[in-house]
Amino acid sequence: VPGEFDFIDWLGRQPLPSPQRIERIAVGVGDDLAALTWTQEDGLLLVGVDQVMDGVHFDSAVHTPRAIGRKAMNRNLSDCAAMACLPAAAVATLCLPTGVGVDYAKELFLGMQEAAGVYHCPVVGGDTGSWPGKLVVTVTILGRSAGVTPVTRTGARPGDRIYVTGPLGGSIKGRHMTFSPRVDLARDLAKNHRITAMADLSDGLLRDLRNICLASRVGARLAAGRIPVHPDVGAADRDAGLVAAVSDGEDYELVLTSPDMLGPPCVDVGTVTDAPHLSIETGKAEVTMAFDEIGGGGWEHDL
Amino acid sequence: VPGEFDFIDWLGRQPLPSPQRIERIAVGVGDDLAALTWTQEDGLLLVGVDQVMDGVHFDSAVHTPRAIGRKAMNRNLSDCAAMACLPAAAVATLCLPTGVGVDYAKELFLGMQEAAGVYHCPVVGGDTGSWPGKLVVTVTILGRSAGVTPVTRTGARPGDRIYVTGPLGGSIKGRHMTFSPRVDLARDLAKNHRITAMADLSDGLLRDLRNICLASRVGARLAAGRIPVHPDVGAADRDAGLVAAVSDGEDYELVLTSPDMLGPPCVDVGTVTDAPHLSIETGKAEVTMAFDEIGGGGWEHDL
Repeated sequence: VPGEFDFIDWLGRQPLPSPQRIERIAVGVGDDLAALTWTQEDGLLLVGVDQVMDGVHFDSAVHTPRAIGRKAMNRNLSDCAAMACLPAAAVATLCLPTGVGVDYAKELFLGMQEAAGVYHCPVVGGDTGSWPGKLVVTVTILGRSAGVTPVTRTGARPGDRIYVTGPLGGSIKGRHMTFSPRVDLARDLAKNHRITAMADLSDGLLRDLRNICLASRVGARLAAGRIPVHPDVGAADRDAGLVAAVSDGEDYELVLTSPDMLGPPCVDVGTVTDAPHLSIETGKAEVTMAFDEIGGGGWEHDL
Repeated sequence: VPGEFDFIDWLGRQPLPSPQRIERIAVGVGDDLAALTWTQEDGLLLVGVDQVMDGVHFDSAVHTPRAIGRKAMNRNLSDCAAMACLPAAAVATLCLPTGVGVDYAKELFLGMQEAAGVYHCPVVGGDTGSWPGKLVVTVTILGRSAGVTPVTRTGARPGDRIYVTGPLGGSIKGRHMTFSPRVDLARDLAKNHRITAMADLSDGLLRDLRNICLASRVGARLAAGRIPVHPDVGAADRDAGLVAAVSDGEDYELVLTSPDMLGPPCVDVGTVTDAPHLSIETGKAEVTMAFDEIGGGGWEHDL
């Protein structure tokens, strides 16, 4: 990449999110790998990676590099929320289209740093390449359990209530670029309640809930009337709104299960069952969906 | 991605590299994040990420997905070597061209796993996307210092010897896809000798040594006659071979500095100086290169 070394120099000069985080960094940006201290208080080390691709997760003709960087980081922070862990550090890669220039790369980085800075999470390394293809940004997030046992997808039990943390659907109108990951809410919930399973809503409620069901070997029954539909959906009627709310992806709210009564912002949308499928009670009828049917969207015609 | 859930299911069923590593994994493939235990014996947590892009680091028309996966992982393992740490776990992303199919993705994964398995390093998570663009593979590597202080680029001192761990140049003939990262050698060296700085040779000896010099605020003098030229270079004469050996990238040998005498496979190629530049003694003359000149290649005409 032309200017790559200047970019790495510039990265090395960027202020770190907070003095506390500096202590963690034994070796920072600019070496072969970063080195971090990990104490007993940090607990389990969580790790995951998520990518955004031009034309799939954003449109570089419409969205600024700052917004793209923020989204790439926030998707990963949302995974931290889904596990109820604290973001600890991140590394990132950029596939830059030939000729976009170092300033564009800096804006991508600043967007990532802006999002991560909310959680005092430093970007400690990365890799930058240039090619005749489109922009791809990946972020790898490291999280620490820090006193809260990670919430997996495997613990949902029949009888648990199913909750979502906010209204769903229509994020394509803009929220998919601007959402705030629910890290603090997830930590609070996991500290103060029995949360048996949790995931973030990236693929839409039905798909993400299906994943929890498969991992926990349970079923789920949703109450159509209780599912909060986001105003962004702008549907002609309640049924169309409901389809969007349960199918649209990239809400980045949480779906979780608990035997406890949870107050706002959690909305009770249904019950964990021992059935081998998902169903939606519409009042008129109960629409049943086999797990392997979800994703195709054929069930939508039954609602 | 069509078949993405099948692929994730398949990933979750893959055998882990060794029983020892299973203990580390508290949450494996298939949740929002993987969770790993980190003990005091693991020491510092090292982290870095490296990507390979079709047409830049490999050619998907020529190289098999197995070989591409291996290379993506081995580049990261080579970064572990450069820091003298042990690979602990990895996560990966795939940008798959539309229509390549799940079998292709599996081969990429198996290549990664093959390379990582040498070091009992599990692939614990990832993200897969499909797009009309070309293949991009990223691997994020986690390493553990495990009793050996990480070797950075910052400790080279005037008077130290400069070593490389094998013959250089011509890797484009094929070695760039098939190299073995020098993890064990690096750990042995760092355990038994005073290694003051180290990096892996991904950008070519001159550029990578330049990076050590800048990080350590020193200079370097290379002895042209001692630089081992790989037979793959196939140069017409010694001078042309030398240019390839110091300029070609992707050797994935190590360059390191030490006040100690090091035996094979380390080859003494020069001396750390207090000059603000690199130079090469050719016997006929000493060619001096300013740090910001390296990379352009203009100096090659002086050799």
